[in-house]
Amino acid sequence: MTKADSRPTDAAQQLAQDCAQAMWARDGACQYLGIRVEAVAPGFARLSMVVSAHMVNGHGMCHGGLIFTLADSAFAYACNSYNQNAVASSCNIDFLAPARAGETLSAEAQERSRSGRTGVYDITVSSSSGKTIALFRGKSYRIEGEVIAGLNKAPLQHSS
Amino acid sequence: MTKADSRPTDAAQQLAQDCAQAMWARDGACQYLGIRVEAVAPGFARLSMVVSAHMVNGHGMCHGGLIFTLADSAFAYACNSYNQNAVASSCNIDFLAPARAGETLSAEAQERSRSGRTGVYDITVSSSSGKTIALFRGKSYRIEGEVIAGLNKAPLQHSS
Amino acid sequence: MTKADSRPTDAAQQLAQDCAQAMWARDGACQYLGIRVEAVAPGFARLSMVVSAHMVNGHGMCHGGLIFTLADSAFAYACNSYNQNAVASSCNIDFLAPARAGETLSAEAQERSRSGRTGVYDITVSSSSGKTIALFRGKSYRIEGEVIAGLNKAPLQHSS
Amino acid sequence: MTKADSRPTDAAQQLAQDCAQAMWARDGACQYLGIRVEAVAPGFARLSMVVSAHMVNGHGMCHGGLIFTLADSAFAYACNSYNQNAVASSCNIDFLAPARAGETLSAEAQERSRSGRTGVYDITVSSSSGKTIALFRGKSYRIEGEVIAGLNKAPLQHSS
Repeated sequence: MTKADSRPTDAAQQLAQDCAQAMWARDGACQYLGIRVEAVAPGFARLSMVVSAHMVNGHGMCHGGLIFTLADSAFAYACNSYNQNAVASSCNIDFLAPARAGETLSAEAQERSRSGRTGVYDITVSSSSGKTIALFRGKSYRIEGEVIAGLNKAPLQHSS
Repeated sequence: MTKADSRPTDAAQQLAQDCAQAMWARDGACQYLGIRVEAVAPGFARLSMVVSAHMVNGHGMCHGGLIFTLADSAFAYACNSYNQNAVASSCNIDFLAPARAGETLSAEAQERSRSGRTGVYDITVSSSSGKTIALFRGKSYRIEGEVIAGLNKAPLQHSS
Repeated sequence: MTKADSRPTDAAQQLAQDCAQAMWARDGACQYLGIRVEAVAPGFARLSMVVSAHMVNGHGMCHGGLIFTLADSAFAYACNSYNQNAVASSCNIDFLAPARAGETLSAEAQERSRSGRTGVYDITVSSSSGKTIALFRGKSYRIEGEVIAGLNKAPLQHSS
Repeated sequence: MTKADSRPTDAAQQLAQDCAQAMWARDGACQYLGIRVEAVAPGFARLSMVVSAHMVNGHGMCHGGLIFTLADSAFAYACNSYNQNAVASSCNIDFLAPARAGETLSAEAQERSRSGRTGVYDITVSSSSGKTIALFRGKSYRIEGEVIAGLNKAPLQHSS
């Protein structure tokens, strides 16, 4: 079950999409690595990345750092979907299977907890054949500011 | 105190350097990101990376995934310094301070434990001003094969 | 959805229960802390613990180490449910809310991955009111031996 | 090198000892488990615990949860040594070697970072023979209140 299934309101869903679009426009790192945002919802995101030849490390496998980067990006889009700036505080990743050049990886981020200024998100990185490549857990911390500056002056309400 | 201070034998030090050179030659990901190997020793590595404009994320800070990638690379060079292939099994990172475009980051990996097929390495990522940017801990797992294939047929001894 | 819902065979379910019973009989630590095994299935376990007065730390909350101990125990019963000895290799816990003396905590362990000698399990610790107290992720490592010594000589099959 | 070697002022050292004493007086969990505070200093603590017969788990080894509890306690005494209440936010532990009944374990906590409301501490758990049993890393979060209520009204200064 994804957060998307818990049926956010139309406004919350629209906000999540607007946040993703605003983030993407200034997200040089994701653009540089060819990371794509496939889907977003409040507390949820699914991103993909093709493992290109220059992402391969000394053992002929996709560099773990770039698998992490994909997962961390999904985490960022999920935890910033409420238009409140949030950053990664700490992250843990377990690498389960290698990914090879040419494969398309998908990272799906789901919110496990959000309370006060912190949140916990689980991200699963899978290959296109459905194999689990890595399991990532990230803790977010809300900082000052909005993803879309000034938007929260509008009467949209979020409980957190 | 670094592992380099504990005075490896000349042979062990030479092996660490040869492993790093061999890894580097086929390490497309590090080359692509401009990561440089500054120093290696048995169980030790120090790498650097300049935060380029395309590494910056939606909050104007270096993407955490690329800070992780630098740390993970230092981890890889340290845990592969014995000419026995090792991969990251699980990693944990705490992000302490942001890094901005133009800064040079340094990641220093030190071995905390190595026994059987697993090892634990601590990596500190610092800015050129000496600020700690992130603390990374990685667990390595030794797999089949050598970094420099065929070299271990030579009578070089490693206790592990 | 729990692993229990994925309908193990009767033999696998019986084996999980037998393993739990055998572990419990020699598990001084769980007995000492009043930890109870509420349910087990292949790759799954749910345990409970009442926060007693002597489990409270200097801030008037259940000592995080004992919340961890409950989660780690659920992890152990889940990853040993196949009658192959497994131990915790590394664990990560996020503390989300305090637990107070008198509360009954429940820890539910679910398998996220099992392949080769390693597995990843997610454990959620909740209070009786349904509040999430902690999120735990553990990596298991299979070692020599069986939970119920000699049993695997019987023709029971496990794929892993 | 321990934090104790970096020579805190007499006042800071005294405060750390006073905080430890105040915490210990109300720390039912540590008392219950026979955990002893061996040494404290600003950002530093060393605690010990004898592995008693009732701490042993189903594999004949000290329950990992109780090794964690010892490490987590050392973490707590170190991060509360400034008389500002702090709690564990997330912790990671790598289990390296088993501990058996009768052994005395020692956990030494050292501060790696402290800035704003968060800190990172590394705790090493060792056996009396000097073997490393576990490596623990904890992230602390400062909450309202003092360890010794009312003390900070006195003119003692702490930068953090």
